[in-house]
Amino acid sequence: MTYKLENFFAKDLPDATGAYSGFPEYNFVGGHNSEINIPIKKLVKSAESVLLKEGKNLALYGHNSGPQGNLALREFLVSYLDEHTGMKIDSGNILLTSGSLQALDLVNKLLLKKDDTVLVEEATYGGAISRIESLGVKHLGIKLDNEGICPQHLIQILEMLKAKDISPKYLYTIPTVQNPTATVMPEKRRREILEIAKKYNFLIFEDDCYADLTWDRKRPKSIYSLCDEDRVIYCGSFSKSIAPALRVGYIIASWKAISKILAYKNDGGSGAIEQMILADFCKNNYKKHADELVIELERKCDLMMQCLDMEFGSIAEFTKPKGGIFIWITFPASINTNRLFKVASEKGVALNPGSEWVSKSEEGINKIRLCFANPKDETIKDGISHLAQICYDEFGIPITGANVKR
Amino acid sequence: MTYKLENFFAKDLPDATGAYSGFPEYNFVGGHNSEINIPIKKLVKSAESVLLKEGKNLALYGHNSGPQGNLALREFLVSYLDEHTGMKIDSGNILLTSGSLQALDLVNKLLLKKDDTVLVEEATYGGAISRIESLGVKHLGIKLDNEGICPQHLIQILEMLKAKDISPKYLYTIPTVQNPTATVMPEKRRREILEIAKKYNFLIFEDDCYADLTWDRKRPKSIYSLCDEDRVIYCGSFSKSIAPALRVGYIIASWKAISKILAYKNDGGSGAIEQMILADFCKNNYKKHADELVIELERKCDLMMQCLDMEFGSIAEFTKPKGGIFIWITFPASINTNRLFKVASEKGVALNPGSEWVSKSEEGINKIRLCFANPKDETIKDGISHLAQICYDEFGIPITGANVKR
Repeated sequence: MTYKLENFFAKDLPDATGAYSGFPEYNFVGGHNSEINIPIKKLVKSAESVLLKEGKNLALYGHNSGPQGNLALREFLVSYLDEHTGMKIDSGNILLTSGSLQALDLVNKLLLKKDDTVLVEEATYGGAISRIESLGVKHLGIKLDNEGICPQHLIQILEMLKAKDISPKYLYTIPTVQNPTATVMPEKRRREILEIAKKYNFLIFEDDCYADLTWDRKRPKSIYSLCDEDRVIYCGSFSKSIAPALRVGYIIASWKAISKILAYKNDGGSGAIEQMILADFCKNNYKKHADELVIELERKCDLMMQCLDMEFGSIAEFTKPKGGIFIWITFPASINTNRLFKVASEKGVALNPGSEWVSKSEEGINKIRLCFANPKDETIKDGISHLAQICYDEFGIPITGANVKR
Repeated sequence: MTYKLENFFAKDLPDATGAYSGFPEYNFVGGHNSEINIPIKKLVKSAESVLLKEGKNLALYGHNSGPQGNLALREFLVSYLDEHTGMKIDSGNILLTSGSLQALDLVNKLLLKKDDTVLVEEATYGGAISRIESLGVKHLGIKLDNEGICPQHLIQILEMLKAKDISPKYLYTIPTVQNPTATVMPEKRRREILEIAKKYNFLIFEDDCYADLTWDRKRPKSIYSLCDEDRVIYCGSFSKSIAPALRVGYIIASWKAISKILAYKNDGGSGAIEQMILADFCKNNYKKHADELVIELERKCDLMMQCLDMEFGSIAEFTKPKGGIFIWITFPASINTNRLFKVASEKGVALNPGSEWVSKSEEGINKIRLCFANPKDETIKDGISHLAQICYDEFGIPITGANVKR
């Protein structure tokens, strides 16, 4: 047999990706952030200050903070999360990770085995769904309204599972600025969900990555903070509130969980310079930075909504986000967004098709998620206009754009 | 049943770790590096320069370099590795990773399935062995001499496997400054190993993390560079040559392998600031930095060897390393180093017991690995003296230390 490298590859891997073709002209995907809000000068100042003071710690794995990550950054989180979302924790409850994606992987490894069942919001983060599926774990979507997870539907699903003798391991939820619907779950609803978790005995995996991006800059109490036992595992990130390329996230949980995760987090620690810079930056600047960032994000959100109204009219249904970086849009049933995704990509307009952002992929087939945080104003205007034209060319709607018939 | 969080944990996970108890007084474990050689001022300068120039790219996942990591750093590697180890590659052959540990995980995922067999050096990196074992993959150790892997023993093992109809997936080797024996495999031996790989049709996984730390600062041609087909997958790191807390490593392979790995490297990219700083730093300073680092490392190596000779005499057998950061020591059979590890740890002396650094754990039972890069001179002197006393108290040897009877 002639030698071929690919004969050695494991059989169950996803298809190879294509080569990177550069940043799309109209890029409305993923979690990119606002360029003008990257606090470059302050990051430089923090880099200088912290490296001169603590740079020698780079000679050590763990940079003299141990395997849970930079102690100063963990201490910032302890105090910030107490003040803003009522969490009573200490630095031992925090494990810094390489972005919240590593947090998802580590928590899934802690809790899940093939053929397990978990509950998710009917529309939720695509990266969480794909991770759950890659482990051979089943997910069931719980209906959402404008206050997040519907308790009645949650109970209905739980009773259905109970009848089959299935106990879900966890409910994955993004209660504050839900991804993709951008709602905020009120405290009352959080307490209801917690009571149900206790009654039916499952864990809550609370992803709070967007919680600092509400337009009013108020965070409800986290579900973690409302729970009187160690039933909630919490994760967060600096990707959305400072910069996605930083790759610094965290898990917050009882020491029982953290000490177990540490036993298999065998990556030599997460990047130290970024943690050190963040620790210095956050202590002095985080709150003010987030206040300013959110003003710019809301402005861009308003702009994108105006453009959608103007170009798509009633074809594009959406609710004004309560915060965050994206809008979740429902089209008429005649628009297949997997198809729209494909033709738009070819014309330089990148979007997230809804089928990747829902538990039952067929329920996302006429939906898309658009991220407004990164593109410049002109890119938003032109990109939404192009998208409407592409949509018209493919599906015959919307017939008018900017009040002019196509 | 009363609620207990641990009832939800997956059953096959390792035991929870204890809380971090601080840096041991005499720490001779792991890959910590020389503090005085951390190029703090130059890193600060690079941080300032690169953040002011490219900081806005932090708003993007991939910081405008795509999913393979910082382009300038990959271009540095293309040119440096061509000049120093004869590799003809382009930036498309490189995938930057969160340390070479992520590189090991990604390559293992590409190639290995439960019950596969791989070949390793009889003594090799503990983190590689534990990863292979955690996947349910078998490893067989190939004998080493002072030029690395013994071709005759390799063939013998391959014939034995062939008789059982087993094809090993890869041979994992650290040819330059082998971990833990610190030998350097000459080019002739590399070519022999490659011929055997072709004849018996397995891949070579070449780990070159220590290759810039030879005392003479000469790197043999990498096995990758000697191979006329895509049979070698190569990994490297900046942990040993700049700083372990940085967590920047890389995989070098044919695009076939890289494009496949990219399909499941779903971590949102590895940390950008560290890659950006390294790209700027390396272009201007890497070679000179490594030259200076190696002088200090060899000085410390000599000091540790002197201390071992003085405190342990003929009890501690070792060959002078050709480079790197550690010494591999063989004691008489009467010394059980798992026991020594335990009692020494309790007295503040941390070492790597040999059983974790060999393929057949019983073959490492009278061996230890000591890292000399991080401890100060006094710490090396006092630590080796303490270790000899601890060893005497436990095993009755060495009877004399510093020419004085105990």
